[in-house]
Amino acid sequence: MKALVKTDAGPGLELIDVPVPSIGGDEILVKVFAGGICGTDLHIYEWDEWARSRIRPPLVLGHEFCGTIVDVGTHVTQVATGDFISGEGHIACGQCHSCRNGAFHICERLRVIGVDRDGAFAEFVAMPAGNAWKLDESIPREVAAIMDPLGNAVHAALEVSLAAKSVAVIGCGPIGLMAIAVCHMAGATFVIASDVSEQRLALARRMGADLVLDARSGDIPARIREATGGAGVDVVLEMSGHEQGLRDGLGALRNGGWVSLLGLPRGRATFDLANEVIFKEAHLAGIFGRRMWRTWEQATALLRKGLDVTPVITHRLPIARFEEAFSLLKAATAGKVILYI
Amino acid sequence: MKALVKTDAGPGLELIDVPVPSIGGDEILVKVFAGGICGTDLHIYEWDEWARSRIRPPLVLGHEFCGTIVDVGTHVTQVATGDFISGEGHIACGQCHSCRNGAFHICERLRVIGVDRDGAFAEFVAMPAGNAWKLDESIPREVAAIMDPLGNAVHAALEVSLAAKSVAVIGCGPIGLMAIAVCHMAGATFVIASDVSEQRLALARRMGADLVLDARSGDIPARIREATGGAGVDVVLEMSGHEQGLRDGLGALRNGGWVSLLGLPRGRATFDLANEVIFKEAHLAGIFGRRMWRTWEQATALLRKGLDVTPVITHRLPIARFEEAFSLLKAATAGKVILYI
Amino acid sequence: MKALVKTDAGPGLELIDVPVPSIGGDEILVKVFAGGICGTDLHIYEWDEWARSRIRPPLVLGHEFCGTIVDVGTHVTQVATGDFISGEGHIACGQCHSCRNGAFHICERLRVIGVDRDGAFAEFVAMPAGNAWKLDESIPREVAAIMDPLGNAVHAALEVSLAAKSVAVIGCGPIGLMAIAVCHMAGATFVIASDVSEQRLALARRMGADLVLDARSGDIPARIREATGGAGVDVVLEMSGHEQGLRDGLGALRNGGWVSLLGLPRGRATFDLANEVIFKEAHLAGIFGRRMWRTWEQATALLRKGLDVTPVITHRLPIARFEEAFSLLKAATAGKVILYI
Amino acid sequence: MKALVKTDAGPGLELIDVPVPSIGGDEILVKVFAGGICGTDLHIYEWDEWARSRIRPPLVLGHEFCGTIVDVGTHVTQVATGDFISGEGHIACGQCHSCRNGAFHICERLRVIGVDRDGAFAEFVAMPAGNAWKLDESIPREVAAIMDPLGNAVHAALEVSLAAKSVAVIGCGPIGLMAIAVCHMAGATFVIASDVSEQRLALARRMGADLVLDARSGDIPARIREATGGAGVDVVLEMSGHEQGLRDGLGALRNGGWVSLLGLPRGRATFDLANEVIFKEAHLAGIFGRRMWRTWEQATALLRKGLDVTPVITHRLPIARFEEAFSLLKAATAGKVILYI
Repeated sequence: MKALVKTDAGPGLELIDVPVPSIGGDEILVKVFAGGICGTDLHIYEWDEWARSRIRPPLVLGHEFCGTIVDVGTHVTQVATGDFISGEGHIACGQCHSCRNGAFHICERLRVIGVDRDGAFAEFVAMPAGNAWKLDESIPREVAAIMDPLGNAVHAALEVSLAAKSVAVIGCGPIGLMAIAVCHMAGATFVIASDVSEQRLALARRMGADLVLDARSGDIPARIREATGGAGVDVVLEMSGHEQGLRDGLGALRNGGWVSLLGLPRGRATFDLANEVIFKEAHLAGIFGRRMWRTWEQATALLRKGLDVTPVITHRLPIARFEEAFSLLKAATAGKVILYI
Repeated sequence: MKALVKTDAGPGLELIDVPVPSIGGDEILVKVFAGGICGTDLHIYEWDEWARSRIRPPLVLGHEFCGTIVDVGTHVTQVATGDFISGEGHIACGQCHSCRNGAFHICERLRVIGVDRDGAFAEFVAMPAGNAWKLDESIPREVAAIMDPLGNAVHAALEVSLAAKSVAVIGCGPIGLMAIAVCHMAGATFVIASDVSEQRLALARRMGADLVLDARSGDIPARIREATGGAGVDVVLEMSGHEQGLRDGLGALRNGGWVSLLGLPRGRATFDLANEVIFKEAHLAGIFGRRMWRTWEQATALLRKGLDVTPVITHRLPIARFEEAFSLLKAATAGKVILYI
Repeated sequence: MKALVKTDAGPGLELIDVPVPSIGGDEILVKVFAGGICGTDLHIYEWDEWARSRIRPPLVLGHEFCGTIVDVGTHVTQVATGDFISGEGHIACGQCHSCRNGAFHICERLRVIGVDRDGAFAEFVAMPAGNAWKLDESIPREVAAIMDPLGNAVHAALEVSLAAKSVAVIGCGPIGLMAIAVCHMAGATFVIASDVSEQRLALARRMGADLVLDARSGDIPARIREATGGAGVDVVLEMSGHEQGLRDGLGALRNGGWVSLLGLPRGRATFDLANEVIFKEAHLAGIFGRRMWRTWEQATALLRKGLDVTPVITHRLPIARFEEAFSLLKAATAGKVILYI
Repeated sequence: MKALVKTDAGPGLELIDVPVPSIGGDEILVKVFAGGICGTDLHIYEWDEWARSRIRPPLVLGHEFCGTIVDVGTHVTQVATGDFISGEGHIACGQCHSCRNGAFHICERLRVIGVDRDGAFAEFVAMPAGNAWKLDESIPREVAAIMDPLGNAVHAALEVSLAAKSVAVIGCGPIGLMAIAVCHMAGATFVIASDVSEQRLALARRMGADLVLDARSGDIPARIREATGGAGVDVVLEMSGHEQGLRDGLGALRNGGWVSLLGLPRGRATFDLANEVIFKEAHLAGIFGRRMWRTWEQATALLRKGLDVTPVITHRLPIARFEEAFSLLKAATAGKVILYI
């Protein structure tokens, strides 16, 4: 079968032929329909420090995907051949303290599809049956391909009640963009979005942001305070992974406010803990992956209610054009890029 | 001035002339614009057991109202003559354990305007300055008159996050009806309403209920389970104050679900604690009044965002037609009845 | 092997010889060391309405127990032959909404060892490997036998923070008695206990209750209010399962207080929802089983820190004297009765 | 009267004679018994950047104190002449968003006694009556003098339930030392303390730390992980205000853990947000002041139950020896230093 593979320790990827994977007793084989490219995939493509420390080539990439089950292992009961599913890429051990407390998404021995084992940018992927989320016919197939990043957005947004609250979404990559619509559906009464790309701010407006701010023009906190009657926002969703984004968010936060931290800074971040966190009694919550399976249930309920994230998908490419897809990601002006397998 | 007064210990009310009240140093005098009639007012009108134990005539009724400040006491700084305000009817002592913990709405020595001191069904009402909520021009004046019951609905609905959840509103009096719209704005993805009145169910549909159920036809739990794929609803708002309503709600609740209890049963209620609460690990939360001032801020934010509760106001009458107004309340088929002073 | 069996649909039990159970691939075989008798076992013994509706004889009783693993199924990895374990009696399906949200203890298709399948009042018991809790050498073996009811106590007590709070434990059966010590270790600064048995009140004192009240002398709420400076207690643990106990607890609760409801009333319970729950904004939480595995981790941490529940074990009998054991339970004056197998 | 005054914009303080302050209608005059010196006082003494930006000399210092009311303003009802009180130094406006939501301690227009108005290192202090906490006879007077920092410790420790949890207290200044004892009383089952001073580590042991670690020897996270079976601690109380302390705490935290951030770093702090907060889903909560009045009620309940913080008071000096007192503070090896007025 065709697969997009990190063949050697170094930059780049190759679309090559590899054997169809075999499955264990608790696994399923999925005929992949489409997949989304994620920042993680770009790290692996570019072979940066993190990738060098984590990835053991050869590896098939891809952890955001959907497809049809074509084979099931001997112990599998919860899904069946023919089911259309979206994949949860995080495989929990089930035995650590986090897992024993129902927090599978922060498993202490987490393994990730497309990172620690072969992924879904291929005609077929083998995966644990317990990581499949069976999909409703009502959900568009290309949305099914990006349930993973939509889940990130839902997890970040729903970690605190947003009803009757103001929210600033800092950073309008695909997850930030989806979060804007999620915030509105979750009851936020005023949603501000900031980014450094005009294209992404235009998408933010389309996703329902009440106010969009170009972060390049500076002084985001003052402008957010002005827009919220001086007090600042109740909630910040930090989706940029930039130190300045984090500072903007904290500076715009009202006393007693909440920050969901999802964007991953490269290296260490520096900020003014006394004035921006302690005196304010800010609450900062790290957000990672998706609660299994609460987040998936929430995302599904929101989609059924009418949540439309399709505007976030700006590019749909066949897997053969993967180089173009990764260039788009590097430019940081596109929305979501989907690869059709 | 004209005032609607319980003159003697017995049923009925009289519209009579009384002196304009004088104000203390921390009080304000309000020229009343309009007021809403509440179930509590009906209890006082009918002189039932509760009224006999609590009310000391003569008493001017009325605790849901709005109006314009025409005089302020010598120590008042937070509001001024000319301000248009809605009244919070619950006066907290500020010194008890609840008040000292910021839970003024469950003050242990709570006094209520129109119950424990003269109320607002009169040309003027004297009240503590600290109980006034200054209103935005954007809020319609007749909505301003019912911020109190709207606050009840908001308090009951927002006590738990509703994002991506299913909700059953049991009982479609004015508070239940307003709660339906609030639930949707707060992120509920499926809202079911039940009542025994066709008129109220029609209003429920108009307020946005996804499914309305006539409780007279029985077996509400089974029908709610059927509508939610067998599992039951995540959240119940008990707004009926009837034992059967409470049982319906508990029977329709999914394991681990939440119940906001707002409707006041007459006398004791009987239910199956083991099967409907304990085995399910249901959470039941008594809801009373409005959190001061969080609920008021939330209600204001929702109204600014577009919450429309005007369909709930089905009757607008001059105070002279108060007998008609109380008859409407007794029939339990109307929405909110407003008295113009 | 010897086993205590409900042989026929009717009152009583028989100690008879039955075959050693065989195990499935995900199961383990445990050589039972000792077991605790629970109220549920008494219901089955007496063949009451609940038992008639649920139990399908023949059935080996017993769901509180500890023992040594003597055989493991082919898929079992997390425990091994020779491990000493305590059994979690509740078997979750892993697939329902509750399970998918990590709330295995309120699984919608819960099956119980000793109720829905053969239990542990026998020389050997077969059970799912995933229901075994491996025990520390530091924990006494007879405490290991009652980790299940200790877990009930821990779950009820730790559902809300008790630090610097006052607590009333209503009902001093074994779970209530253990809860008294748990409350103190969890930070409660004043713990009141009530019961109708002098023996149990003496045990309550021994478990650390700051004040014990004989519920037969009436007016528990007034006496608790007096002991708490008039305000009432912050938290009630309802462990009696009697309507009067529930009323006592609610009447003694301060505004905004919390009630953990664990005791199972026979039939319906009646109470004054308006005055005892709604006006007070009481929060009532049904408590069932043990959170898997948070409660087990908490109980283990408390035992290691010095929690001593051995005074609660008042009787230790060989299984041959089971009739005597059940008589003790019926009298409701003993603490925990343990059967040695 | 004698008072310890910052007379001019520059380092140092002077003990001089100033007039006894007069009081407003809502104020009280307190004859000061004793006061505690705080890090804030040292900042003002040393006239650092923060002090230069905030303090307007002349100013009487001192915000941790107790004393006897000798005069009350005309509107004061909640306290009376002769009452012995401890002072809450933070004066809330009562009108901002935070205050209106009951979060007075993070008032947006907070003013502080001894910082923004004359303080209590003087024979008499004038203060709002609403900032007095009336004290029980059972509480030692020198503990009464430090209810403010004890309140910081209680607020930081009780922001999350500690029952059956492991805690690392990073930094053993007076607040950290008091927090150790508070954690144990609040149910923590294992408390680790770290500091760079041997004297303070000895005090930490005396306050009940189960394990004390000298931070100078490095690799605190590894040693904490080793002591907690590899997983890390459930809760970190960051009391050091040093970047390394924060990193130690985050590195020692288990996935899904909680951090109370109380220590104020000088300048910006730098840390690894991705690995130490986001992947772990750490929850960081800024902690400031004391919840009014929940924290005071909690501290009082703990003291009545037997909390003993007197070992933390290592030095008791007459106000005339204030230079010695400030030197002790600078050395960072003492516990609490109390000035007798």
